[in-house]
Amino acid sequence: MTSPAFFEDFVVGSSYEFGEYHVSREEILQFAAMYDPQPFHLSDEEGKKTLFGGLCASGWHTCSMAMRMIVDNMPKENTGTLGSPGIDELRWIKPVLPGDILRMKTTILDKIESRSRPGMGSIFMLNEMFNRKDELVMSNKPIVMCRKRN
Amino acid sequence: MTSPAFFEDFVVGSSYEFGEYHVSREEILQFAAMYDPQPFHLSDEEGKKTLFGGLCASGWHTCSMAMRMIVDNMPKENTGTLGSPGIDELRWIKPVLPGDILRMKTTILDKIESRSRPGMGSIFMLNEMFNRKDELVMSNKPIVMCRKRN
Repeated sequence: MTSPAFFEDFVVGSSYEFGEYHVSREEILQFAAMYDPQPFHLSDEEGKKTLFGGLCASGWHTCSMAMRMIVDNMPKENTGTLGSPGIDELRWIKPVLPGDILRMKTTILDKIESRSRPGMGSIFMLNEMFNRKDELVMSNKPIVMCRKRN
Repeated sequence: MTSPAFFEDFVVGSSYEFGEYHVSREEILQFAAMYDPQPFHLSDEEGKKTLFGGLCASGWHTCSMAMRMIVDNMPKENTGTLGSPGIDELRWIKPVLPGDILRMKTTILDKIESRSRPGMGSIFMLNEMFNRKDELVMSNKPIVMCRKRN
């Protein structure tokens, strides 16, 4: 399901699933070389020496892949989304590996109208990322600022 | 100061500053095109219509730039760092803009020896990222797994 467009459209307690992200070895290595050049993100050999058991994606790469699925699932013409002031309880639960296919589930936990800016409010979400074996690999709780319909 | 290498070396209450990251317009656009193609991360025009006031870096890009500074500040030969299970209270406080020069400050909040794995423990940190005007632009609280010296 495409994510809701405006503050009024987010239903607390509802959830929606979306996305399909194919994780390649090349992309893991490319991201790591640029932003997180730790040995276990750059080489199988070094990954095998760690708790991860092999080459795995940077946690920030994992979050970035989640974001890409989230943006691709936003309504194309009209979205009230205004960005995020932050994220709570980001957890990297299982390593993201070359060849993984990832998908997302978003649950709307709460929403609050802004007192200072009457045209907008905050949406509190739970984002969960799963791999092909339906294992939860990452979760986080973003706060998203969102415009009202009018 | 280079970050400590092993569990024993982290001193609760201590802090250290490091890093210098030059943020280019090209890199903001490149990251956004790949992972966060929202209008305010892709165009000045669209950024001006938002609370950010202009083109700004994706929050995940900001975190990734912080990670690069963190990795570059790790001891080169010996590091006990084993990755992170997660992050609490990630906050994007001010937009990161083209031309910004960013730096980091890490404070050691707490550390706890592992009960199940006697050779390691968890370090609780506060990471803060500042721009050239010494404005706090991002903060988060990572949990980092770390090996003991022997």
